[in-house]
Amino acid sequence: MTLNLVPFVSVDNMMKLVLHLGIERVLVDLAAEIEADFRRWPQFDKTPRIASHSDVGVIELMPTSDGETYGFKYVNGHPGNMKKGLQTVTAFGLLADVETGYPLLLSEMTILTALRTAATSAMAAKWLAPKTPTMALIGNGAQAEFQALAFKAICGISEVRLYDLNPQATAKCARNLAGRGLTVTPCRSAEEAILGAGIITTVTADKTNATILTDNMVGSGVHINGVGGDCPGKTELARDILLRSAIFVEYPPQTRIEGEIQQLDPDHPVTELWQVIAGEVPGRSDPAQVTLFDSVGFAIEDFSALRYIRSQLGQSGFCEPLDMIADPDDPRDLFGMILRAM
Amino acid sequence: MTLNLVPFVSVDNMMKLVLHLGIERVLVDLAAEIEADFRRWPQFDKTPRIASHSDVGVIELMPTSDGETYGFKYVNGHPGNMKKGLQTVTAFGLLADVETGYPLLLSEMTILTALRTAATSAMAAKWLAPKTPTMALIGNGAQAEFQALAFKAICGISEVRLYDLNPQATAKCARNLAGRGLTVTPCRSAEEAILGAGIITTVTADKTNATILTDNMVGSGVHINGVGGDCPGKTELARDILLRSAIFVEYPPQTRIEGEIQQLDPDHPVTELWQVIAGEVPGRSDPAQVTLFDSVGFAIEDFSALRYIRSQLGQSGFCEPLDMIADPDDPRDLFGMILRAM
Repeated sequence: MTLNLVPFVSVDNMMKLVLHLGIERVLVDLAAEIEADFRRWPQFDKTPRIASHSDVGVIELMPTSDGETYGFKYVNGHPGNMKKGLQTVTAFGLLADVETGYPLLLSEMTILTALRTAATSAMAAKWLAPKTPTMALIGNGAQAEFQALAFKAICGISEVRLYDLNPQATAKCARNLAGRGLTVTPCRSAEEAILGAGIITTVTADKTNATILTDNMVGSGVHINGVGGDCPGKTELARDILLRSAIFVEYPPQTRIEGEIQQLDPDHPVTELWQVIAGEVPGRSDPAQVTLFDSVGFAIEDFSALRYIRSQLGQSGFCEPLDMIADPDDPRDLFGMILRAM
Repeated sequence: MTLNLVPFVSVDNMMKLVLHLGIERVLVDLAAEIEADFRRWPQFDKTPRIASHSDVGVIELMPTSDGETYGFKYVNGHPGNMKKGLQTVTAFGLLADVETGYPLLLSEMTILTALRTAATSAMAAKWLAPKTPTMALIGNGAQAEFQALAFKAICGISEVRLYDLNPQATAKCARNLAGRGLTVTPCRSAEEAILGAGIITTVTADKTNATILTDNMVGSGVHINGVGGDCPGKTELARDILLRSAIFVEYPPQTRIEGEIQQLDPDHPVTELWQVIAGEVPGRSDPAQVTLFDSVGFAIEDFSALRYIRSQLGQSGFCEPLDMIADPDDPRDLFGMILRAM
């Protein structure tokens, strides 16, 4: 492929590629890629995402670079979209060669973000959660099935207990998970869902300071995978839970603005997950400890995911060339190239 | 077109669209769009571009929004690319709907950036430069012809005097401009090029603190269109010229880092061009004054350019649909959509 043609992975090709590889294998591979990149965290250029907020949502750019490859993701978050029949979150992303600045890959990332978010959650739980066969899954929307399968494939979860304010969402989730080797238990309340669960995943969509979990619902020794508290004014956990949890985050300057810890003082102690993975600090230090992964999603996870997709393209045909970069024979002669298009 | 399909303007279609409309008409239209957006400057979300620097170049994201439409550009700057037969600057950009976060347009922007940069230069000169038939054009690379035609179409320039360290670049530029209604005068030195020129455009590519113009070369009453001093460590003008010029800039927080004024104290007075256009402050105040447009390129110019291209697409066929946004029938059922792709 010549340099001016950028491989593009459409939504259709992403679905076909994921099915070709197998969803659980993709989740396991993504978790390994993300873990490897978290282990070399200091090598990356890091910046909080660049957000453009409006009354109804946010549009964000999430760039990072490891000095050889540059990547960024475009992603929106519009909680009101669902009522219009649209996705709350849509995304696409790009990889480029740092040496030349030329793009290497353009890809849909709505699906890929759902996969990498679940893979990151399960990878973090591998380091932080107690051994448990059971996960509560509160919020059964677009992200739910990905979370369930990631925790099955990466953490050995065998039962998921589902709850959503909307019973239709729970029914949809249970239907999609049927026959995939998980015991799926729909529940009528959050309290019922967390019964016996060593891991509690919260992944609800409302842009509000909600209280999905109250303090008395969270017993000792539990791991909370907090996914849905991910932008200013959007949290899911009672503040008291945070005060008695060991809190692990991706990139503190971003999580302090967007995560559950926006409810806490700006100097409240948190641990960076990469330091646990790199062996610099301990993860769970006590079976009775409540651990919280306050996940908001960081650019390096998207970078890992895009690099993984690129590595799997090969001769697969799951991409198409996009005529995106003007590349005149004489680089000084951009004007002449236009004239010759006549 | 359904929402999941994003109109994409390829390099090929951009060339065809520009030729279909006519290059000078596009330059005039772009200058008008950019001027209109500069006039409503306070309505925009503004941020200095987000740069990822390496030893060999920079990759940047340039977002902005007017509250209804969001836009961003990806652009690289790699001065060493030319020796590899690659473009120094390549770019693409996107418009999105602030209400939903869904993309509205994806477009190549290597060509469009060249056009909007020239249109912005000429639009600024319309407000700042003396009446003059003659422009010196120092630096005859990929941007040169666009500058020449923009100043012809927008400022009434009838003679361009060309100089480049590389005579082949000058020859290329003269060849491309032949027969377009301009008197084109190749010169053997920068000194010769500026003879009688009321406007001096500097648009060289080296990433270095160069001195393309020394102080004694710039006579009173001249307008300098400084285009090539556009990133940290890359300037073209002797500092003494800046000290006796009235300096006009796009967005001071960005220009202080990237423009000619990186050579000056951070509180050296500059005027924002939009304030001149909005009638808030005067432009040129004296025929003897040296005016400098210290141009680095700002996100709003790309926003204006993308909106213009979108407005010209209509039923033209100069775009193709890109399957970029996952859009399941039930927005909660992203997982089910993947399964159904089987």
